[in-house]
Parts: sequence; structure tokens; C-alpha cells
Amino acid sequence: MNAAYARLKTRFARIATLGEASAILNWDAAAKMPPGGAASRGEQLATLAGLMHEMLLSPEMAADLAAAEAEGAWDAANLALMRRAHARAACLPTTLVEAATEAAHACEVTWREARRTADFARVRPLLEKVVALTREQAARLSDALGLSPYDALMDGYQRGIGAADVAPIFAEYERFLAHALPAAEARQAALPPPLPLEGPFPIETQRMLAQAMAARLGLDFSHARLDESAHPFCGGTPEDVRITTRYREDDLAQALLGVLHETGHALYERGLPAAWRRQPVGEAAGMAVHESQSLIIEMQACRGDHFLRFLGGELQRAFGGNPAAYAPENLAQLWRRVERGFIRVDADEITYPAHIILRFRLEQALIAGELRVADLPSAWNEGMQALLGITPPDDAQGVLQDIHWYSGAFGYFPSYTLGAMAAAQLMRAARAAIPGLDEALSRGDAAPLVGWLRSHVHEQGARLGFQELLVAATGKPLDPRDFEAHLTERYLGGSRVEPPAMLPAAGPGHAAAPAGP
Amino acid sequence: MNAAYARLKTRFARIATLGEASAILNWDAAAKMPPGGAASRGEQLATLAGLMHEMLLSPEMAADLAAAEAEGAWDAANLALMRRAHARAACLPTTLVEAATEAAHACEVTWREARRTADFARVRPLLEKVVALTREQAARLSDALGLSPYDALMDGYQRGIGAADVAPIFAEYERFLAHALPAAEARQAALPPPLPLEGPFPIETQRMLAQAMAARLGLDFSHARLDESAHPFCGGTPEDVRITTRYREDDLAQALLGVLHETGHALYERGLPAAWRRQPVGEAAGMAVHESQSLIIEMQACRGDHFLRFLGGELQRAFGGNPAAYAPENLAQLWRRVERGFIRVDADEITYPAHIILRFRLEQALIAGELRVADLPSAWNEGMQALLGITPPDDAQGVLQDIHWYSGAFGYFPSYTLGAMAAAQLMRAARAAIPGLDEALSRGDAAPLVGWLRSHVHEQGARLGFQELLVAATGKPLDPRDFEAHLTERYLGGSRVEPPAMLPAAGPGHAAAPAGP
Repeated sequence: MNAAYARLKTRFARIATLGEASAILNWDAAAKMPPGGAASRGEQLATLAGLMHEMLLSPEMAADLAAAEAEGAWDAANLALMRRAHARAACLPTTLVEAATEAAHACEVTWREARRTADFARVRPLLEKVVALTREQAARLSDALGLSPYDALMDGYQRGIGAADVAPIFAEYERFLAHALPAAEARQAALPPPLPLEGPFPIETQRMLAQAMAARLGLDFSHARLDESAHPFCGGTPEDVRITTRYREDDLAQALLGVLHETGHALYERGLPAAWRRQPVGEAAGMAVHESQSLIIEMQACRGDHFLRFLGGELQRAFGGNPAAYAPENLAQLWRRVERGFIRVDADEITYPAHIILRFRLEQALIAGELRVADLPSAWNEGMQALLGITPPDDAQGVLQDIHWYSGAFGYFPSYTLGAMAAAQLMRAARAAIPGLDEALSRGDAAPLVGWLRSHVHEQGARLGFQELLVAATGKPLDPRDFEAHLTERYLGGSRVEPPAMLPAAGPGHAAAPAGP
Repeated sequence: MNAAYARLKTRFARIATLGEASAILNWDAAAKMPPGGAASRGEQLATLAGLMHEMLLSPEMAADLAAAEAEGAWDAANLALMRRAHARAACLPTTLVEAATEAAHACEVTWREARRTADFARVRPLLEKVVALTREQAARLSDALGLSPYDALMDGYQRGIGAADVAPIFAEYERFLAHALPAAEARQAALPPPLPLEGPFPIETQRMLAQAMAARLGLDFSHARLDESAHPFCGGTPEDVRITTRYREDDLAQALLGVLHETGHALYERGLPAAWRRQPVGEAAGMAVHESQSLIIEMQACRGDHFLRFLGGELQRAFGGNPAAYAPENLAQLWRRVERGFIRVDADEITYPAHIILRFRLEQALIAGELRVADLPSAWNEGMQALLGITPPDDAQGVLQDIHWYSGAFGYFPSYTLGAMAAAQLMRAARAAIPGLDEALSRGDAAPLVGWLRSHVHEQGARLGFQELLVAATGKPLDPRDFEAHLTERYLGGSRVEPPAMLPAAGPGHAAAPAGP
């Protein structure tokens, strides 16, 4: 590598080290900080963000980015990601970034109150300002990156995926939903109702069990913590990953399933390539890939029949009560219930993409200037009626439910469903590559699956984009038919539609190296 | 203020904001971080320290420091502290600071093992390197500040106090100790042995009680947390202060008294002047002043007869058991026991200064080049024999017991005893100023004392040096006879020696403004 590239590696490592500090401070703010620390914490985080921005945009950095040369796939990808990070930052004037950050902060604060009182009018002018400033940023990013404004925003969350990739996939899913949802509902209605799990479930037992399950899935708690916060998340750094959940004494599912989900995120962070730590290419490949890793653990593995067999036994031992309630078939009925609901975060696997499709279309229209903020609530309610046949009783259960737009995050939502689809596709490939994967899961052994994910996803860092990663790991770009086949098998009973075989011949397990970029 | 000074205020606030981030990351490292996070956390903290150093030594900073003008006592003091911070940093080459930091880190790691195995020889070469690099730093600081090398180190912990101030005070204390210690021992031996407190003391009850006591003393937990760590400390920031302790089920004193001590530190941080937040003059006045605030709460107030009356009742209610064991006279015998011991942190109020005097003399000789590291263990043991008439059975209970020197902290130790003496002097002044202070303490009401400390110490920030602060608050510079009078009254029974009256006439309570600098 030449001297300019060597200097860049040092500078980017320094920026990333400040990013690690911010990550721990953000975790602390959500999990530990007393409320009176909020204002000064905000200033600490803003100061760190400002320093990272200054370091990224320093004149020396621009000169070295122009002069740098890198050899080999990893270094070439690393340099490309450095140039991309610089290009994204350099086209946004600091005044615009600050104005957008301030507007989003003010909007988010008012949104909390507006959601509580179901009063969209209250937050509307603030959201209008956020949308206007986001459109201005999107226009500048669009010019700099040669992408449409909305795609330029999407690219910030999942590199290399745009609306043209997503729109046909979502349209196809809508067609699938039209017959799969009524069919799943009918099948579910024909079953006797599931037995309830009888609490109380002591919180300390829940905590110990959740931590034991996360450890069993492969999370090394000498490099991780499990704590509580109002909203579950995974934060921290690859060497020191922090997952959180929330507990209720009358319900064990919320905390436990939340921990399994966050464990998937945490395993990804822990598995990122140590040799590229603090370099852009050593980071996660994007939010859609991240979500695929939480969902393959939570939805594909842990809520599947095989793992539920193991988990039910553990739960019955820990909490006692009626063994029949902890039978895998009963847990499946409780934890895989299909229901047309208003709230995205409570949605089942089949209806969840409908919530995303709605948001994707609305935010595209907002950024394109084709939808006014004033018309957003009615557009939301019409979309829900068209997609799921239900209309929210108020805006708190409609357009006000998610923090994303009010905090300035546009272009993020598609990642959730892209992640769910990628999880199904990766699981299918892993099953084909690893004989006995499901048998291992029924013994509570996720090591074969996690080992495969480690080599095919985690250790790839950000070297490959979303589609390239899927091609390398599964032999094809995103194929939503794998997700549909998964839903068909799980919710419609065995009539699994096999997509055409596009997989590479099943090799000798997970030692097979992924194909090149 | 002129433009240069205005710019300096902004720059110092930015540095202080990074310092706050470091403080939270340090707390996390001690109280929450999984062990696997240690290496990357060290790099995060080093990166932040390096940035703060760069910001302090930037060319723009030097130009503005030269051109700045400030009016009024607070701004003038603030500018003087800015110049002092710059002068202390500018005389130390970055290579020297880095070498010293690395040497101290390596030495500290080996020290942990050496202390465990009582093997001084193992850590000796590393300590020699730390001493050599510390002497080099002290020589450079000495030239820049016009202080002796050892005074230049002391000045880093408590501005404006040097060996010439401390030596006669410590010599006088040695004379006091020669008669007071045998007298206290004889008086103690004549009493019937105290009743033990019968455990177990459930840890959750201890935790709730300790937090309730800290809150009762005035710590606002909307801006504070209480957690656990291997060594109790007070960290965090004024808006978000973090205290820690450690619990044992068979002993309630260690955790509770530790929390009362750290609460004194925390109240000081919380009470620092908000109008000068993130400015040098808004910080604590130094380590001796900080220790005076922990000791006035723990030793002067909470271990005094009056507060013990209240505390005994609370403990008996919380833990049950024999009420006679919780009588204030019995708690006093248990928690104010005088004993010639080897370990500083376990020492009582009378013998504690002997531990400090020993360290003060040895570290002075080390920095002056008059004592070789190789001769340190024997010099230590001879000093203990001379001061307390005991000889440590091994170096783990001798020269290896404290982390300070092995982590590069020379000139810190005197702060502990200066703080103890200042606490006695401040308590005497507060008692004279506030009628009913002790009666309030016997009801568990520390508000009159803490209110007086707030206006006379906390809200003064770093405007005044150690002696100036004492003059303003008590009418005289440090007068060790107040400490001796306190010990005489508490441990020798009523024969309180009154120092000559040098106090200002007792005013109408704690509203009296302190005198100027």
C-alpha cells in the first residue's frame, strides 16, 4: 500500500475509535444514565460527532484520498468505502447538517408528546421542517453520488440498494400476501386455541435464562453485557457489545424473544473481521444485512419448531407450570400468531412486510415532493386499508407510531423486510450446506448455523454489498421466493413452494469460501 | 471580555466536554465493562486524551492565551487557570508523555501480580522506569512553573500547595501522634468490647439503604447513580455523577460508610457552579479540597455521635437484631476503632496521617534522587517502625499496597491528610456559623451542613486555591490544630484543646458570603 493509503488507515481508525466511544455513551444514555444527564450527554455526543466530521473532511484527508492506492480485494474495498464516506459527508455543508440535526431533535421531542395524545397536528410543522431539510440533503447527496434523492438516502443505511431493486420485490410480496394472509388466518382459526403460559415469571429468573440462551447461541459474555432499557437494542462495539431488553413479570415472551433477536445483531458485531477492526471494510455491511442476522437467529432458528422443542423444556424447568403449555406446538401457536394489527413492532412475519411497504411508498413520495406532510395521515390510513384491510382508530396507532421519520430517518424502513427476506434465503442455504442443522437446533445447539453465518456473513465485514454478499453466500441475489417458501411452510402447512435450484452444489459444510465480489 | 478570551472559553468548554465523555467511559470501565472490552477501551480513552492534548496545545490556543484579557474575579481566575493548564501541558513533549503513560501502564499491570505474590523485585525495574520518567517530567514542569520538581508534581493535584507548606504540618502531627495514639489506645482498652452487628445483611437491603442515605444527605438521584465496583469511587460529571461501592453480606459497614464517603465527593461535584460549567474555574479546587468534602460528610458528620444516633435507628429497622448493638455508643466503638495497622485504606483517623507522612517523605526522596527504588522497601519498613512501631510482614502489606506510584502518581498522597485536616477546620467553622447543626444531624438532617458547604466550598469552584478557600470559609489558612482538637475530643474523651479563636464573628448562618481571594 502507498503512504497516502497507510495514513488514511490510521485516520479512519482514529475516527472509528471515537465512534466506539460514542456507541458506549449512547448505550449508557439508554440503559443507565439518570435523566438529569440528558442535556450534557447530548452535548458530549454532538462534540464527538463534530470532531469525527472535521477529521473526515480535513484537507489532508482529501489529498490522501485522491493519492491513495490499495491492492487486493479487501484493501480496494476499504479504500472505496473511505471515498464513499468522504463523498457523502463532503457534499453536505456543516450548517445544513446542524440545522437538520436540530430540527430532528426538536421534532422528536414533540413527537413523543404528539404520539401520547394522538395529535398529529401538533408535530406537523416540525415534521415539515424535517422533511424539507432531508429533501435538501437528499438533493445534494443525489448530485454527489449520481443516485436519485431517495436512493441516496437508502444508500446511507444499506449501500447499493435502491428503490428500483425494492419496488418489484415489494409488489410481488403484495400479490403473495393477498392469498397467503387469508389462508394463514383460516388455518389458524381451525385450530383449538393455544394454552396460555401461566406467570408470574420472576424477572431475575427471566434475566438469567435470557443471558443463558444468548450465551448458548454463542454470545461470549466476556465481551458482552445484557441490560434493561425502555426499547430493546444492540449497541456498543465489537469487543464490548451491549444488548438490552425489558421485562414484565406477567409475560416472558417479550423479554426472551427480544434478547434472541438482539443476540443475532450482537453475534454479527462480535464476528466482524478482527483484522479489519476500525476500518470501513471491517464494519457491518449495512442495516439490511444486520437485520438479516437478528432475524435468522430469532425468527428462522429460535421460533422454528426445532429450537422451540429445546426452548420449551428449558422454560418449563425454569418456571414450572403446565408442561403442555411449553410443548413446541403450543409455543408455536402462541409465538407465531398471525394477526392484522396496526403496530409494526408487534406484527407477525406475514403482515410485517405490509407495514414496511406502506412506509416505503409514503417516504418515497415525501422525498419526491409528491406527498405533502399534511396529507400523510390520510395517505397512511388509506394504505393500511389497501394492504391489510384495517384502518387505525387514531394517529397514535397510525402515522405517529414510529420514531424514524420524526428523527430524520428516511430510507431506513426497507432494511427490515430486506433483512427478513435475506434471513430466509441464508437459512435455506445454510440448511443445504449443513446436514443436521435442524437436529442440532432441537438440542439447543446453534453452533453449526452460527459457524456458517460467521464465515459467510460476519467475517465478510463490509467488503461486499447486500446483493454481492447474498450471491457469495447463497448463489443468487435476493430471491423473495425463499421468504415466501418459508412463510408457506410455517404458516400454510407444508405446501412449501420450492424456488428453482440456483444454489451452488452443497459443499463439505461451512468451510467453503464465498465467491469473490 | 475580549474576542481572544471568548474564543478560549469556547475551546476549553469543548475540551471539558470530551473530558466528560472520558469520565463516563472510565466509570463504565470500572463498573460495567466486560473484561474483554479493556484493550479497546484503553484505546478510546487514549484517543480522547490525545485529542484534548492537541486542542490544548494548538497554535491558535497559544495565540489567544497571549492576547486574552478578562475582567472580574471569576474571569480573571478562569484565564489564569487556562494559562496554567497550557503551561503544564506545553512543557511536556508528547513523546515523553506517551512514554510515561506506557511505562505506568506496564508497571501497573505487573504491580497487580507483584502485590498478589508480595514480590517487589518483580515490579522493581518497571517502577524504576516510571520514577525516571516522572523525574524527567517533574524537571521540565519545574523549569516551566518555577517550582521545585516535587512541588510541580503536587501542584498537579492540589494547586498552590508545596512541600514547604506540608512538611511542618506533618512534623507537628508526628509530635501529636506520639502522645495521642498511646492515650487513645489506653482509653479504648479500658472500655468493654463492643457488641458485634449480627448479619447476614441482605445486599439488596444494603443497596437500598445506602442509596436512601445518600439521597438524605442531599444527593439528587435524577443526576446520579449508585453502582458496584471492585474499588469504591466517585466519577462521572457534575450533571451525571456516578458513585460506586462494594457489598459483603456479612458486613454492612464497608459498603455503607464507603457510600457516605463517596456521597461527599458527589455532593461537591453536583454543587460546582453551574454558571461556570466546563470552564477551568468551574471545576473542583483540587484533590485536597475534594477529600475534605468526602471526609467532612463521612468522618466529621456521619461517624460523629449525633448522626450515629439517627443512623443506628435506621439500621436496626432495616436489618433487625439486637438494638443495643445499634446504639450510637456501640457503633462509635465499632466504627471508630484505633489500631496500628499496615494498610492505609483500613486505617483509623488518628493513624491514617502516619501512612501519608511515610509516603510523602519517601516520594519526595525518590523525586529528589535521594532514594533509589531498590532501597524503597527497607525505607518503607523503617518508616513504619518509626511512625507506628510496627513492621510489615511482607511487601504486599508494605510498599506494594497502593497503586499510586506504580501508576505514576507522585505528589498525590498529601491530599488525603490535607483533606482530613481541612474537613475538621471546615466543620468547626460550620458549627460556629450554624446553630443547631449537630441537633439536625441527630435527626439525620444534613441540610444545614451541606448548605453551608455548598456556598462556602462547592459554589466556589476552582476560583480560590486551597489556602485561600480555607481563609474565606474559616477565617484562617490550614490550621492542623482543628484536626487535633477533633481527634482529641473524639478519641481522648472531652479534653478538647481549643485553638485560639481566629474565626470571624459567627454571622447569621450560611448566607454570609465568603471573603474575596
